[in-house]
Amino acid sequence: MTAERLSSQIAFVVEIDKLKNVFRQTLLIDRTRRENSAEHSWHIAVLAILLSEYAQKSDIDVLRVVKMALIHDLVEIDAGDTYCYDEIGAQDQWEREEKAANRIFGILPADQAKELLDLWREFERGETAEAQFTAALDRVQPLINNYKTEGKMWREHGIKSDRVVKRNSAVNKGAPVLWDYTSQLIDDAVKRGMLQK
Amino acid sequence: MTAERLSSQIAFVVEIDKLKNVFRQTLLIDRTRRENSAEHSWHIAVLAILLSEYAQKSDIDVLRVVKMALIHDLVEIDAGDTYCYDEIGAQDQWEREEKAANRIFGILPADQAKELLDLWREFERGETAEAQFTAALDRVQPLINNYKTEGKMWREHGIKSDRVVKRNSAVNKGAPVLWDYTSQLIDDAVKRGMLQK
Repeated sequence: MTAERLSSQIAFVVEIDKLKNVFRQTLLIDRTRRENSAEHSWHIAVLAILLSEYAQKSDIDVLRVVKMALIHDLVEIDAGDTYCYDEIGAQDQWEREEKAANRIFGILPADQAKELLDLWREFERGETAEAQFTAALDRVQPLINNYKTEGKMWREHGIKSDRVVKRNSAVNKGAPVLWDYTSQLIDDAVKRGMLQK
Repeated sequence: MTAERLSSQIAFVVEIDKLKNVFRQTLLIDRTRRENSAEHSWHIAVLAILLSEYAQKSDIDVLRVVKMALIHDLVEIDAGDTYCYDEIGAQDQWEREEKAANRIFGILPADQAKELLDLWREFERGETAEAQFTAALDRVQPLINNYKTEGKMWREHGIKSDRVVKRNSAVNKGAPVLWDYTSQLIDDAVKRGMLQK
């Protein structure tokens, strides 16, 4: 029984290696290349342990947040990374990702498949404090990288500030103090010509 | 006060982006390139949440393990990745990494700098159940990737099985069940000619 269980767990460990080759529309701060979703997930998991004091809910469950951060993008192994400003890609995103979640988490033993699928759906629904805080971090990290790379990807995609503000309003829900910070960053990006008004 | 605190935290978030360009002697399973330390840290953090049932200590603190997994390689930003079979690099590894830890964690506000520096030292000392379990995962993941890439990196570096067994004995300490699994993997790798006897 343990052998079979461990074998499913290892199969999942092998499968998720693929997330390291799903590339996002965010540059590394040194601008050498685009960031992949495994690195991004690592980065926001570190943010989760560092910035939990700013979560809207003061007694937030940090382990749940870290788990969500670590697994929130696994569906991209099948569904690809849908750029957050891609309106066409967004149309069938839910369907593609739901199917991917079922396949990928389904590799695990049933109890763990359920746990991670539930966590991923909780993140997607964004109703709990943990999901909202994770979503906030999921906005903050790329915003920092975009700012630190002088908005190269915003400029390449012709993104204007109102869309960035709208996208980042999730930060206000999950972590109001961080929203103040990100708002200043966006204003400054406009002022410096990194981001079109 | 919050502004100054947040500013130190963000400076750290920016600094650790560099881990995404520290490359290891492990291939991705699809063999397209070497793995970097940020991806590796993400991968073993996921292993921590999946495999904690195999930790030697049954009531292990999973959040502590995940934190260690996420930050255990940050020193490589300054010290570089020392290949685990590099005996010359190992000579001054402790000194290089201790210096790096002080600089990098020192970017954070004092309380968080202390927390992460303590956690990193705990991992390095390997005395607690959490540190030993994290160390086990830190061996298991590259072993899986090496096995799944037919031992290409072992062969390139002329690594023999006794060194792999010795290196992986850490798995026995932190997670005996996983040690049974990794031992079989190593035996099989020798049998299939991926790893020299």
